[in-house]
Amino acid sequence: MTDKQILLLPGPTPVPPQVALAMARPAINHRGPEFKALWAEVTSGLKDVFQTRAEVVILTASGTGGMEAAVANLISPGEKVLVVTIGAFGERFVQICRAFNVEAEVVAFPYGQAADPEVIAERLAADTGHEIKAILVQHNETSTGVLNDIQAISRARGDHPALLIVDSISGLAAADLPMDAWHIDVVIAGSQKAFMLPPGLTMLAVGERAWQAAEKCSNQRFYLDIKKARNSGLKGQTPFTPAVPLLYGLQESLRLLKAETLAGSYARHALMRDMVRAGVRALGLKLLADEAIASPAVTAVCVPEGMKPADIINPLRERFGVVVAGGQGAVKDQVFRIGHLGYVSFNAILAGLAALEAVLADAGVPVTRGAAVAAASTILSESEAVDK
Amino acid sequence: MTDKQILLLPGPTPVPPQVALAMARPAINHRGPEFKALWAEVTSGLKDVFQTRAEVVILTASGTGGMEAAVANLISPGEKVLVVTIGAFGERFVQICRAFNVEAEVVAFPYGQAADPEVIAERLAADTGHEIKAILVQHNETSTGVLNDIQAISRARGDHPALLIVDSISGLAAADLPMDAWHIDVVIAGSQKAFMLPPGLTMLAVGERAWQAAEKCSNQRFYLDIKKARNSGLKGQTPFTPAVPLLYGLQESLRLLKAETLAGSYARHALMRDMVRAGVRALGLKLLADEAIASPAVTAVCVPEGMKPADIINPLRERFGVVVAGGQGAVKDQVFRIGHLGYVSFNAILAGLAALEAVLADAGVPVTRGAAVAAASTILSESEAVDK
Repeated sequence: MTDKQILLLPGPTPVPPQVALAMARPAINHRGPEFKALWAEVTSGLKDVFQTRAEVVILTASGTGGMEAAVANLISPGEKVLVVTIGAFGERFVQICRAFNVEAEVVAFPYGQAADPEVIAERLAADTGHEIKAILVQHNETSTGVLNDIQAISRARGDHPALLIVDSISGLAAADLPMDAWHIDVVIAGSQKAFMLPPGLTMLAVGERAWQAAEKCSNQRFYLDIKKARNSGLKGQTPFTPAVPLLYGLQESLRLLKAETLAGSYARHALMRDMVRAGVRALGLKLLADEAIASPAVTAVCVPEGMKPADIINPLRERFGVVVAGGQGAVKDQVFRIGHLGYVSFNAILAGLAALEAVLADAGVPVTRGAAVAAASTILSESEAVDK
Repeated sequence: MTDKQILLLPGPTPVPPQVALAMARPAINHRGPEFKALWAEVTSGLKDVFQTRAEVVILTASGTGGMEAAVANLISPGEKVLVVTIGAFGERFVQICRAFNVEAEVVAFPYGQAADPEVIAERLAADTGHEIKAILVQHNETSTGVLNDIQAISRARGDHPALLIVDSISGLAAADLPMDAWHIDVVIAGSQKAFMLPPGLTMLAVGERAWQAAEKCSNQRFYLDIKKARNSGLKGQTPFTPAVPLLYGLQESLRLLKAETLAGSYARHALMRDMVRAGVRALGLKLLADEAIASPAVTAVCVPEGMKPADIINPLRERFGVVVAGGQGAVKDQVFRIGHLGYVSFNAILAGLAALEAVLADAGVPVTRGAAVAAASTILSESEAVDK
């Protein structure tokens, strides 16, 4: 029965049954009136989640396709951007820039730390010729479980005309990111994170200044062309055949998020984070990210001295059906990651922590069985803000 | 109840219930052992359908993403290709080439006709310097319902080293296309056609000569990089988060195709084509494509004098819930298209023809009610090759 799994991944998240049912609806014509109505509802609902009046485009691709779309549609070959990296997905932005002949000047912070807005401010202040066309940065860095302070980074930009392009694939709807209020030009999201859907859609909210950049951009794209997507979208269509079931699922998940409210979703994710962190700490394990910058979507946990991540991940899956993720990039061999976003439940977290206690105890790590669950359930009992 | 629709589209096709159920399975870790087993089964099953020993890559994108992948991974900027166009999807290849700075020399045939292999042979014979790096051509042109003779085109290539890249998005599993036997270098497929799945996956079988071209290709790609996809695939993974439910669905649809056999699927599609064509002819309507080149997946029907496609398409949908497609490209205002691929049933075709009779009669077109259904059901009764 360990095939009845508890998924604690930083995406894909479990899928709510009503979303799965919506996805199983009969096929429709993606050039017909049923699709048009579906499209109108999901694009409107997405704008609420992005907290923007900007146009939203939806592409049939996973999140990396959205990251590529941001680069290939907005930055011309030879132009320079500032890529702020705090982990593996920041590094992916650098790779994409290189693949598209965009000059990526990297401002790197160590794995486990957040970006320092001061450093960005200084670099931009020195760029008096405005050579830097955009700042590319993660909202939530999935590989380390660190949340960047996007509001402070936006302020650090000051009067510099660089576009602020934010990868919030694992952040949106898990942590507040008011696009318009914070003057963000592009926000990239993905279906399989706090939207509680399977993978296969990436959504981009693209502000007016970014659309102006798109008009002038000479970089190469066809399938991921956001202007084509916008123009078709305004007619209730997509330029290429879309993943219709995922759009039905998105309609349903947007209704769920609306009923919960964004504030409710943020509070729920923060509570799951606090439960996981308290539980892990009660077992004496170290957390990669400090409290102040800890992600509400995923927590990277340092493996005890002398152990490898697989020593924990494999028995969790094989003996308890609890599925957590390995490390990525520079901390690949040092951490495992507990995801707590999307349709993860509080009892899934308690069960996951119970399994973690057992796996560590059986491996000879000196832990008190029950300690992690006790710490997490105390946090849960004391919280009042969240509808349990 | 006209929301209970009969879909007669050239994709998306209806989805078999067992495929829809498979897609609703709980999420899994796409970096875990369950995914690896799923991946092994679907890639092996796909090779059978492609009739190849070549490596198969699966990308989370719709078919156009697969067409772009073929260009961006195999042809360098400035290189020349021969694009053989017989309709709107041939023209899409031209647009993709232009977007990726590939010189597209177009050999165009009128909408409704197939490509003449002789013309291709002559052009290649004249290319003594081997400037033409690839031939890009549709197997089944969805916009016109015409099947190209890919075997003859492959023979027309002779000793010329150009790669033969075939878009069989709407053809594969509906019409025979033995990749290895016909010396095709790349075949592109899509999920929402004869594979009976929703849209969202594109599959490419890539032969040895094409992989060699990929090694040297300097064009731009990241998300749609087939080398990355192959290298991850050999480890039972994907470079970026894949659309897992579609892969579960693909596992199921490959099992269905295996049980039916490829020959059975081809015969079923040919029979559906023959039913549709006999029915349409019995109503006195003209078919865009001649018998010898008629697609087993989709039939383009010329609208009667004085009518527009919408005069037929809209009442079919609104009064009967029968969903057919409009025209595309140069014949947009002259045809409507009846799709008969994937999980379309024989009785859906009979019902669709019955509705078509009624719509035409009510519009004052001189038709004999019952004639189309009689012609189609006679064809069905007389056929022996197909498991009904």
